[in-house]
Amino acid sequence: MNAPAASVSRPDPSALGTALAALRQRLGDRLSEAEAVREQHGRDESYHAVQAPDAVAFADSTEEVAAIVEICAAHRIPVIPFGTGTSLEGHIGAGAGGVTVDLSRMNAVLEVNAEDLDCRVQAGVTRKQLNEYLRDQGLFFPIDPGADASIGGMCATRASGTNAVRYGTMRDNVLSLTVVTADGRVIKTARRARKSAAGYDLTRLFVGSEGTLGVITEIQLKLYGIPEAISSAVCPFPDLDSAVNTAIATIQTGVPVARVELLDDAQMRACIAHSKLEGFEPVPTLFFEFHGTEAGVREQAETVQAIAAEFGGDFRWATKPEDRGKLWEARHNSHYATRALRPGCQVMASDVCVPISRLAECIRESKLDLDASGLVGCIVGHVGDGNFHIGYVVDPNDEDEIARAIAHNDRMVLRAIGMDGTCTGEHGVGYGKIRFMEAEHGDAIAVMRSIKHALDPLGIMNPGKILPA
Amino acid sequence: MNAPAASVSRPDPSALGTALAALRQRLGDRLSEAEAVREQHGRDESYHAVQAPDAVAFADSTEEVAAIVEICAAHRIPVIPFGTGTSLEGHIGAGAGGVTVDLSRMNAVLEVNAEDLDCRVQAGVTRKQLNEYLRDQGLFFPIDPGADASIGGMCATRASGTNAVRYGTMRDNVLSLTVVTADGRVIKTARRARKSAAGYDLTRLFVGSEGTLGVITEIQLKLYGIPEAISSAVCPFPDLDSAVNTAIATIQTGVPVARVELLDDAQMRACIAHSKLEGFEPVPTLFFEFHGTEAGVREQAETVQAIAAEFGGDFRWATKPEDRGKLWEARHNSHYATRALRPGCQVMASDVCVPISRLAECIRESKLDLDASGLVGCIVGHVGDGNFHIGYVVDPNDEDEIARAIAHNDRMVLRAIGMDGTCTGEHGVGYGKIRFMEAEHGDAIAVMRSIKHALDPLGIMNPGKILPA
Repeated sequence: MNAPAASVSRPDPSALGTALAALRQRLGDRLSEAEAVREQHGRDESYHAVQAPDAVAFADSTEEVAAIVEICAAHRIPVIPFGTGTSLEGHIGAGAGGVTVDLSRMNAVLEVNAEDLDCRVQAGVTRKQLNEYLRDQGLFFPIDPGADASIGGMCATRASGTNAVRYGTMRDNVLSLTVVTADGRVIKTARRARKSAAGYDLTRLFVGSEGTLGVITEIQLKLYGIPEAISSAVCPFPDLDSAVNTAIATIQTGVPVARVELLDDAQMRACIAHSKLEGFEPVPTLFFEFHGTEAGVREQAETVQAIAAEFGGDFRWATKPEDRGKLWEARHNSHYATRALRPGCQVMASDVCVPISRLAECIRESKLDLDASGLVGCIVGHVGDGNFHIGYVVDPNDEDEIARAIAHNDRMVLRAIGMDGTCTGEHGVGYGKIRFMEAEHGDAIAVMRSIKHALDPLGIMNPGKILPA
Repeated sequence: MNAPAASVSRPDPSALGTALAALRQRLGDRLSEAEAVREQHGRDESYHAVQAPDAVAFADSTEEVAAIVEICAAHRIPVIPFGTGTSLEGHIGAGAGGVTVDLSRMNAVLEVNAEDLDCRVQAGVTRKQLNEYLRDQGLFFPIDPGADASIGGMCATRASGTNAVRYGTMRDNVLSLTVVTADGRVIKTARRARKSAAGYDLTRLFVGSEGTLGVITEIQLKLYGIPEAISSAVCPFPDLDSAVNTAIATIQTGVPVARVELLDDAQMRACIAHSKLEGFEPVPTLFFEFHGTEAGVREQAETVQAIAAEFGGDFRWATKPEDRGKLWEARHNSHYATRALRPGCQVMASDVCVPISRLAECIRESKLDLDASGLVGCIVGHVGDGNFHIGYVVDPNDEDEIARAIAHNDRMVLRAIGMDGTCTGEHGVGYGKIRFMEAEHGDAIAVMRSIKHALDPLGIMNPGKILPA
């Protein structure tokens, strides 16, 4: 229903045949050309149409990824890295065909350095798998996009989630990457020291590069001690503005809140139904979480409670671990709750982020516009960061509805950019947001393009993503 | 006393003449070829020899910097950005001649967005100037290298300082940069939103690029509310290991300490003499600072006090603002205190950073090696980050002494790299640390070189810095 934005030419059929033969020799039945496998790897969790690759290579090691890239480079075959396929902007679409490198078999936690609060994982490890592994050691990794994404994919898209307001995004939590470059070399972007001023920040360059500069195969991550005390709270508000303004005041007051999430009336209704939440009403609501010492958590919560009261919020504690778990599970499943509103429909997720002083205005105007558009949509936001999503529920067969959702999102993105914000706080560009890159970055696009050309002169790394043609 | 590492050829004399004539026409007497001005701009605060440029251009605006770069690019003249000249590795040396762009006249604070906790400044604003400006609004900018450096220079070198353990480095505190690229275009690297996943992280690429990819002219910075409560403490220890192990345990316990600084016996002796500190002894000492609410600060300090007691530390409060001020001023002046140990001498500052689990071992071995070398040197460290400096006091006319200091530093850097650490935690590479880049980065150097070539194809931007020839 949505064509790839960039015009990337498909590989020469005979070169493709030669490359696939070489890959088959190397990988055996870990190279698949089966239609079902190719289709599954051409589809993400969004409304974007399937763009299947010519083959899928299931890699077992960094060296193997390097060999795959080397073979593809020799024959000018596109290479598309694939983690869990949970991206939202067509990042894994093979618009020009080529070989998808599936990293899910590379799912080992390679080392945990508890004394240094860091670990090294292969790219296919998912965030939940990592946290399961760490739990016994009293450590955790905080970045939590809605899906159980792979750590490699989270690096590639510069993911964040509900904890970013306290712990930062993937940008802030990666110490070093092992990367296979476009010519099949293996590099490490940095060493394990917490800080360094030794040369260009290659780590941050590859974080968020969406596979367009190389394939991330291993990641050295920062970890955190599980806080001594954790408490959550839910706070329904009489209206959307009051909820947003409470979040803004919380940040401006400097409370080191671990999570502050907004769900509008529609999103609450969807989550109550999908996650069977009891004792909640479908009104604009903030979910809070506080991390710290027992006394610190109490103090933070009391400060936020006083702020919420000024805006008419009804602040309610959720101290029991099972209540907290249910609450945050419902929040994480909000994408699926939204999709369940209309069976057979897909969710088109928007993702603007603005300076927090403009957040209330941006949400208010976008909600008014949504109500006027006749679309079904839910608002959920990492409001402490100035970031929110509208999940538009669209019928994949209703072209008019999709066009109206796209048009609404376009207006909202331009509104956000006009407020010095961004078209994507955390989902990334893929090909779904390429059309906003000029408006957001202007002449800086030329610098990005120079970097792309320098690091991937053949243009084989995840072509058609991030940069306008 | 120390030759530039990279062989960069000087500009053609007739091209230089033409370029200087064009610059003079544009800048009038803000272009200087006076020897004293050129010499002053070829000298940093280190032991490195003066490398004077052919001329110094005092720029007034981003547009003027762009015009200067455009003229220099047309005639292939090196361009060296200059803030306050307080760098430590020859960053501002004009080893191939060329035009130094002095940004000190660009010292305006352009906007303060108190509600968003950010501001925009011109590159020549110094950190102290900014904090003076902000004080009345209850805000501050935490990054504090020893010198009163310019914000532009701090970006260029990826500076940090004593607060990095809590607030991060320049990498973490820049929202966006205005940059003049090597062909004289003006770009903005990002918008003002707190987070974004929209394309390559150009902000982080230019932070730490030391003027080799472009000239930073404006900076959008994160700010912080001045904490409700601040308290400091001093804690002398019976030996160096106990002090370091207290710092390590503090970090591993997760106390959000704002500062934890180590001064060894020699550094304490120098600071007591230079800053007339009373009631202190020349023994290994930790300086702490705690930021938070009244209750939070008390709780943090009590936790650290208990940790210190286990290692034999004598934890003493410094709650009076004037005592605190004196303490931290002495710490910030430690470079000058070290230099004052031997009048007429210079300080050669080392800057390794290792994973914190290796810090005690790295400091212990380096100190033993220092004692054996017969050199005069003081150890001061941002030990919460795993970062420490030895300031070697060297006689600029004693080649043997300099050679021994360089040899000691070389051994220490290789020791740190062997521990998965870095040759520079915060000072940057300049030309003084180029010789370690291969050992630290291996094949990643080739990727850095590709980026340099893509963004500065003529090689005019601060040539001879960061990358080995």
